[in-house]
Amino acid sequence: MPIITLLTDFRDFYPAAMKAVILTIAPQTNIVDITHGIPPQNIKWGAAALSFTAPFFPDNTVHIAVVDPGVGSERRSLAIRATGEKTQYLVGPDNGLLIPAAKTIGSFEVFEIFSKSTEKPSLTFHGRDIFAPVGAKLSLGENIHEMGKPVTDFIELPTKAPAIKNNILAGEIIFIDSFGNLITNIPEETVFKFVNYGETLFLEGQPLPFVHTYANVNSNEPLLLIGSHGFLEISLNRASARDYFDINTEDIIQIIK
Amino acid sequence: MPIITLLTDFRDFYPAAMKAVILTIAPQTNIVDITHGIPPQNIKWGAAALSFTAPFFPDNTVHIAVVDPGVGSERRSLAIRATGEKTQYLVGPDNGLLIPAAKTIGSFEVFEIFSKSTEKPSLTFHGRDIFAPVGAKLSLGENIHEMGKPVTDFIELPTKAPAIKNNILAGEIIFIDSFGNLITNIPEETVFKFVNYGETLFLEGQPLPFVHTYANVNSNEPLLLIGSHGFLEISLNRASARDYFDINTEDIIQIIK
Amino acid sequence: MPIITLLTDFRDFYPAAMKAVILTIAPQTNIVDITHGIPPQNIKWGAAALSFTAPFFPDNTVHIAVVDPGVGSERRSLAIRATGEKTQYLVGPDNGLLIPAAKTIGSFEVFEIFSKSTEKPSLTFHGRDIFAPVGAKLSLGENIHEMGKPVTDFIELPTKAPAIKNNILAGEIIFIDSFGNLITNIPEETVFKFVNYGETLFLEGQPLPFVHTYANVNSNEPLLLIGSHGFLEISLNRASARDYFDINTEDIIQIIK
Repeated sequence: MPIITLLTDFRDFYPAAMKAVILTIAPQTNIVDITHGIPPQNIKWGAAALSFTAPFFPDNTVHIAVVDPGVGSERRSLAIRATGEKTQYLVGPDNGLLIPAAKTIGSFEVFEIFSKSTEKPSLTFHGRDIFAPVGAKLSLGENIHEMGKPVTDFIELPTKAPAIKNNILAGEIIFIDSFGNLITNIPEETVFKFVNYGETLFLEGQPLPFVHTYANVNSNEPLLLIGSHGFLEISLNRASARDYFDINTEDIIQIIK
Repeated sequence: MPIITLLTDFRDFYPAAMKAVILTIAPQTNIVDITHGIPPQNIKWGAAALSFTAPFFPDNTVHIAVVDPGVGSERRSLAIRATGEKTQYLVGPDNGLLIPAAKTIGSFEVFEIFSKSTEKPSLTFHGRDIFAPVGAKLSLGENIHEMGKPVTDFIELPTKAPAIKNNILAGEIIFIDSFGNLITNIPEETVFKFVNYGETLFLEGQPLPFVHTYANVNSNEPLLLIGSHGFLEISLNRASARDYFDINTEDIIQIIK
Repeated sequence: MPIITLLTDFRDFYPAAMKAVILTIAPQTNIVDITHGIPPQNIKWGAAALSFTAPFFPDNTVHIAVVDPGVGSERRSLAIRATGEKTQYLVGPDNGLLIPAAKTIGSFEVFEIFSKSTEKPSLTFHGRDIFAPVGAKLSLGENIHEMGKPVTDFIELPTKAPAIKNNILAGEIIFIDSFGNLITNIPEETVFKFVNYGETLFLEGQPLPFVHTYANVNSNEPLLLIGSHGFLEISLNRASARDYFDINTEDIIQIIK
């Protein structure tokens, strides 16, 4: 069974309308929800969630992602083929949402979806009227070259590149999970150039030991670890780092040695 | 694979118990969640969500919907066959929840489910004990005439019919989505008898341009548009109309020219 | 199609990563979400939800459950085969989460998962790296004896056993559903030794009639009934008992005749 995943900020019944369209075109599809709980119109958060999840799916999975404040404007619609260990497809708006996942999967080609690839869409719900049918057709093996034209000027999200400068490790919070863990954009490789397990670092004047897992510190105490997604994560054991620190998504953070 | 959809106000694990029952009777079923986040016991909201979504599903889909404050009382259980471009089935309580979707699909026949169609049900969870098994049997092709007797005195929800009177367009808020968009019961056809794109109308003294999509106005500004469901919607670009206006679901609204 | 269910406190995109792993190993699996909304790290609540739902699933269903504050510590990983009317499998952490469901299903054997059964796991996401692959292999028919060694010293949750003493029926709140119904650990059999339908009992000085269903009392009035899960439930008709009484999960309650 071909797999299509969905990631949106829709909550509610809107994803079900997308599923109805997909199952009408491709009845044998296995549809998997990644999440529909992205904070409304938070493209960067959606991009992080997609890039953390998409690479685990089997070969030829199609990922449809919709966090789309510009729907119905001149904003283009994209389909992407990304190839690394596996080939995966990504479908969604041209606003940066899809690109981090494409990069995580491997090398990638970007196509602007031909408007003739879909019937006259509603101007407020491209998820149902453009992305769902295009994704369904890709899952059936339709050629991506026949669905759009290659483009190279796709939009990328501005981001604070992670960096080490003297005794400071700097990056950005790109995601906060429901436990209140603060997930940075600082990858494992960069972290290990700066710190070893067992050392203690400082954030907002608070000491944070760099450890392997939550249970390595006492309950309600803060810590740093490499999360399951491969990025530096600011956490508390059995409590919420979001509540403990005054830090929000897209905030720049500086960790001091 | 036959498709069964579920729409409830259950959240939690209750829908999973319904799925367990369905998969025991009809193991090959593709079960699609429409939503389980209907506000508790808000039948009108559930009816709107069902009617916006059900028509997009393929032929022979069975929709099981449970928003059911009267469970275990004398309230009857219904199965409906609705036929328009496609045939679809609806299963749930006789409290008005199913009727707007049935009307949206086309013409329809209503059946009161025989109590012998199910084993002795719990008095508090007909979703699991009556609607799930009946829906599963319908999805397997069992004849609806053998599962219930035709009735015509089913319950319909009271509603403020949309109307134009002089310079006033009146209707009711039937649904508020998670972006805070206020969705009225005023259909496209009625709206276009009252206003053309580009005109500005007034709600609670505020001017609202009638536009094609959210991005046609500046961020945080209010607007009117025809939503993807075909009804007039009161919105803000990149913000919540629910927070901006003091309007709730089931409120009567008057839009002034 | 083999069925795997998932129950976690993850919300977010983490369950999707588990699904990606399952579908890579066992592509034909039907994955059913029980819930991902267990309150963070509330093992007892998760255990209740699992035990209320698992028994309804078909023979050979595999249930993967992850509410796991001790992830990455010395906490062991378990796979359980439970056999009653049906055989079902349970996979998750050794913290008491799985045991009530195993007991509800029937007799059961517990296995500590060999670390060689999985590749080097992340220390913070055993759901994806241990429980998902083990569950997928069990769903494909792999022998549980080859995946772990039998253990008998598994952890059980401390619990206040339900008891009748003179005119007092005592128990514990183990779950609060989204309607605000307070679900106790007092089973039907115990309740009927204490009270008959139509009698009125007292909780915190308030009278509560013991009835068949919510609609047997007026709106906003409190009541007692046997819930669809077979346990005593404290409810209000069309309102929330959680809001009405000052009672929380894990509270001990005393109902007085």
